[in-house]
Amino acid sequence: MALILAIDRPLDASLVRSICGDVDGIKVGLPPVLKAGIDWALEVARSCSKLTILDFKLADIGAIMEASIEPFLGDYDAYIAHSFIGAEGALSELKELLDRRGRKLILVASMSHPGSRDVYDPSIQMIEDVIDGIGPWGLVAPATRPQIVRRLRTRYPDKVILSPGVGAQGAKPGSAICAGATYEIVGRMITGSRDPAEAARRVREAQDEEAGRCRG
Amino acid sequence: MALILAIDRPLDASLVRSICGDVDGIKVGLPPVLKAGIDWALEVARSCSKLTILDFKLADIGAIMEASIEPFLGDYDAYIAHSFIGAEGALSELKELLDRRGRKLILVASMSHPGSRDVYDPSIQMIEDVIDGIGPWGLVAPATRPQIVRRLRTRYPDKVILSPGVGAQGAKPGSAICAGATYEIVGRMITGSRDPAEAARRVREAQDEEAGRCRG
Repeated sequence: MALILAIDRPLDASLVRSICGDVDGIKVGLPPVLKAGIDWALEVARSCSKLTILDFKLADIGAIMEASIEPFLGDYDAYIAHSFIGAEGALSELKELLDRRGRKLILVASMSHPGSRDVYDPSIQMIEDVIDGIGPWGLVAPATRPQIVRRLRTRYPDKVILSPGVGAQGAKPGSAICAGATYEIVGRMITGSRDPAEAARRVREAQDEEAGRCRG
Repeated sequence: MALILAIDRPLDASLVRSICGDVDGIKVGLPPVLKAGIDWALEVARSCSKLTILDFKLADIGAIMEASIEPFLGDYDAYIAHSFIGAEGALSELKELLDRRGRKLILVASMSHPGSRDVYDPSIQMIEDVIDGIGPWGLVAPATRPQIVRRLRTRYPDKVILSPGVGAQGAKPGSAICAGATYEIVGRMITGSRDPAEAARRVREAQDEEAGRCRG
């Protein structure tokens, strides 16, 4: 199993609980937390005993990032920030806070949309220098550009790699796993379905099938 | 006058109203919106008839950025996003939404903390290509590194430039104005004071004094 559910709109915690058994973890984005509030976000985290990730795509100075995640530190396991913002005064401070609180840092190394080729991807060597300096637990790399997943897997054999872009954004389930990702992140394909738990199982089957082929 | 108040913790709307006359606008960050809620953020915007900026440092794919700011579009004038995420599938979509709703886009071109030198600043030419392609109303550039403000002012003579980093982060009031900024963004130096309106006036005086000197 290698599937993370992306929650980008308010879902009932009871629905999340019913999907939880069919995924490896959940990733909650900013829009539903703004709309449904902190208490909802905490309830959702408590409704699933798998890996819980808060995905605000943090990209500010240290003090602001710390204040943004502070209410969630008791309940979420991991926090996503952009590597692009660099270390001193930003990611170094965030990493220190997360270490102190026993939480995990996940750094975006590249994004799933085409615009990631404008600045992010041509900067990949500098991005890797930041990753080397900070030492995050995990990395985000796009299923839509598997060559980047492969590059990061070669360079970071032991890090967790999470790949968005599967489903609505076009990548096939299993394709990022084949390129070296630890988890694929799937949202709308599951949450937009009439039977989300069943949709999650279908994604897992498709992952297994594709992974079986590429590892063949 | 060239002063924007940064609100990075929940303040009473009545307090914001009392400071509003002594600043050119307000910029509201993510931490207080998460803690105090959307209704508080809207009340704050309505309490000050100057420029109102929502500063979530947006850095996600288009659909997520749009969903994040949707509740605020009726009341906030301008929205801050990161230029490094690139155009297609991200900033292009955000710009289109803001144009359609008659709102302004402000792009971060560089940040105020030292870590901005790791990736952001060495990528400045690619960042400028993104800015050229998107055509935002305003730019964010750090008071702490005035050479970047000068560079952007030379390249973009007509754009609004907002400079954070004055006060708590070390830059002197007026120094970014001297380098070409339109506005300096000041937070803790004002909101941390016992008399914030008086503190705002003191910052303005210091700006005028410094600007008088540099424009000699």
